[in-house]
Amino acid sequence: MRVSQANPAPDLIDFGIGQPGFDLLPAELLRQAGQARLDGKDTSFLNYGLEQGDEFLRHALARFLSEQYASPVDPAHLFISAGASSALALICMLYTKPGDVVLVEEPSYFLALRIFADYGLRVISLPVDDAGLDPDAVETILSQYRPTLLYTIPTFQNPTGVTLSPTRRARLAELARQHDFLIVADEVYHSLSYASSPPRPMAAYAGEGHVLSIGSFSKILAPGLRLGWIQAAPEQIARVTNCGLVDSGGGMNPLAAALVRPLLENGGQNEYLTELRTTYAARVNALNAALARELGDRARWRRPEGGFFFWLELLPEYDTDALLDKARLQRVSFQPGPKFSSRNGLHHCLRLSFAFYAIPQLEEGARRLAKAVR
Amino acid sequence: MRVSQANPAPDLIDFGIGQPGFDLLPAELLRQAGQARLDGKDTSFLNYGLEQGDEFLRHALARFLSEQYASPVDPAHLFISAGASSALALICMLYTKPGDVVLVEEPSYFLALRIFADYGLRVISLPVDDAGLDPDAVETILSQYRPTLLYTIPTFQNPTGVTLSPTRRARLAELARQHDFLIVADEVYHSLSYASSPPRPMAAYAGEGHVLSIGSFSKILAPGLRLGWIQAAPEQIARVTNCGLVDSGGGMNPLAAALVRPLLENGGQNEYLTELRTTYAARVNALNAALARELGDRARWRRPEGGFFFWLELLPEYDTDALLDKARLQRVSFQPGPKFSSRNGLHHCLRLSFAFYAIPQLEEGARRLAKAVR
Repeated sequence: MRVSQANPAPDLIDFGIGQPGFDLLPAELLRQAGQARLDGKDTSFLNYGLEQGDEFLRHALARFLSEQYASPVDPAHLFISAGASSALALICMLYTKPGDVVLVEEPSYFLALRIFADYGLRVISLPVDDAGLDPDAVETILSQYRPTLLYTIPTFQNPTGVTLSPTRRARLAELARQHDFLIVADEVYHSLSYASSPPRPMAAYAGEGHVLSIGSFSKILAPGLRLGWIQAAPEQIARVTNCGLVDSGGGMNPLAAALVRPLLENGGQNEYLTELRTTYAARVNALNAALARELGDRARWRRPEGGFFFWLELLPEYDTDALLDKARLQRVSFQPGPKFSSRNGLHHCLRLSFAFYAIPQLEEGARRLAKAVR
Repeated sequence: MRVSQANPAPDLIDFGIGQPGFDLLPAELLRQAGQARLDGKDTSFLNYGLEQGDEFLRHALARFLSEQYASPVDPAHLFISAGASSALALICMLYTKPGDVVLVEEPSYFLALRIFADYGLRVISLPVDDAGLDPDAVETILSQYRPTLLYTIPTFQNPTGVTLSPTRRARLAELARQHDFLIVADEVYHSLSYASSPPRPMAAYAGEGHVLSIGSFSKILAPGLRLGWIQAAPEQIARVTNCGLVDSGGGMNPLAAALVRPLLENGGQNEYLTELRTTYAARVNALNAALARELGDRARWRRPEGGFFFWLELLPEYDTDALLDKARLQRVSFQPGPKFSSRNGLHHCLRLSFAFYAIPQLEEGARRLAKAVR
């Protein structure tokens, strides 16, 4: 019987799995946190929680983020959610109605696209280049459409790994103000940087009222916790906090909040994040070198400076949906480009995650992938 | 700084708090479960979970429910949610669009009404008598409206405590088939029975495709776990399981699932439920006697056979919104009737919860309430 989403056949190297390897998960840290919190002295987190989320956690998270972002974060501007996906669904529930336009990047995170579909939203995608989403393209589209939301993954984008430049961040925030739409910035990879620090997050604009920044412990601690947050201006935090779902449930995840809080307070999260960065940085180096050896003449990619992913562009004649069948014969798998497209494009692209496997498997996977491509 | 929703002033007896007292929460049980699961040997529940929910948990839950319901439950018909409210919101997201009609009971759970409002649904309420929601009233309204959902709390209803009769259950299920709407049965109080066993749950009709039954560990274990379920036919379970939010999050709450599973497997949940029933049954007796002494001439109520609540009807000239101010002067509080009405009615009614306080406080609360009423 199965417990978890990732379940690759033992002889398959599945670059499609966008989650940490089971051996990377901070079981010992969480065991210690569990021992401390489940000692029976304080049972408050077993009852309905505060709607906005445990105040102690929000204070500890604000301190952590202020450091990560090199930009002050106010605990009053944070709402604790059950992960980034839950945050995105809440925002869709409260701010959109079916038929509303949401602007997205091309390519974008495929499951965000499915959440938008579940809310009946009309998705319009805009090009991404080496500096991220192009604000000129946004401005052009604004003459035709009045979007409700713009969904961006500004830092170490899923799937391209691209980071939005600081000037573009400022310009997008300005466009949102001028045209009165909301930017939903999915900043879950922000702290997973392996080279230089990324620019200030879009969260830095949240106080102005047109940016909602989404974060998560899924990428920096453990996905199974289902704990994340929204950073936004007080009026938006109030709207989320006071909705029926959040009031009825008593906040989104008091139990996970209780386990994570001590790790923010005692430095455990920081230490673990440092380890993660070291591990992932080594994997980026190894996979980059292996891809250069095996596929350097057949594919182009940017070496990712953070996040989970390599985004490969093959020659235009390739069809990565068809390639996937050949790859599986070589016992390797990946996410084909069209999955990330909202206009059935990107057929010659594919996404590789380096989060799930250790270096020897990543190298072997690159060899198998090269065989499939040739 | 605050962690939990309930935060009454120390000298106030707040009958409005519809949650277990902090001293009732199974801290020791969860500590043991935490020790067993956070031993570091199996980290699978720290990663993205199976979308439908941990298979082990679903099997254990199916066995538990088969016993509770005296009616077989198939683990394939269960989806693990982040509590009942999250289940209800998922159903609204997937099955409704703004403007759709949802039939509800008058009175009904006020936060469900707010969830419907957040989804832009049109709420039409129908009368409840001693045998629950009246199917004749449903049939009449069906000649005027084509509802998408009918939301009912069939057993130990919130707030009235009323239980829908077996014949009415069958008739409602039949109407749902004939008129092709979905019954969402909020069965969270089903296992909290203090007298005779309730009728078979609406869940027993789930296999036929027009009933989705919602359950939760909030009432029988701990609200802070944020763990519940939907029981439904395979096509509906598939629809929920495959939606973007659930796929992206990797199921709804793998961490809580990991803690609750051993308690279902080792009988801990059953033993705790037996204790809870004994505790709550004694509270019902005590509060019933205290109300009879103090308010027997001013109010009418049914003695609840399960659940969390007494529903009091005062003389029609009373306005319980206004009474609340007087009650607070007596350092007692409650939920006024209009909160549970979707047509601004029930001004002479009020709801008292007996879950939060021990017997001496319930008795003192009844005395204070009587002073306010007189």
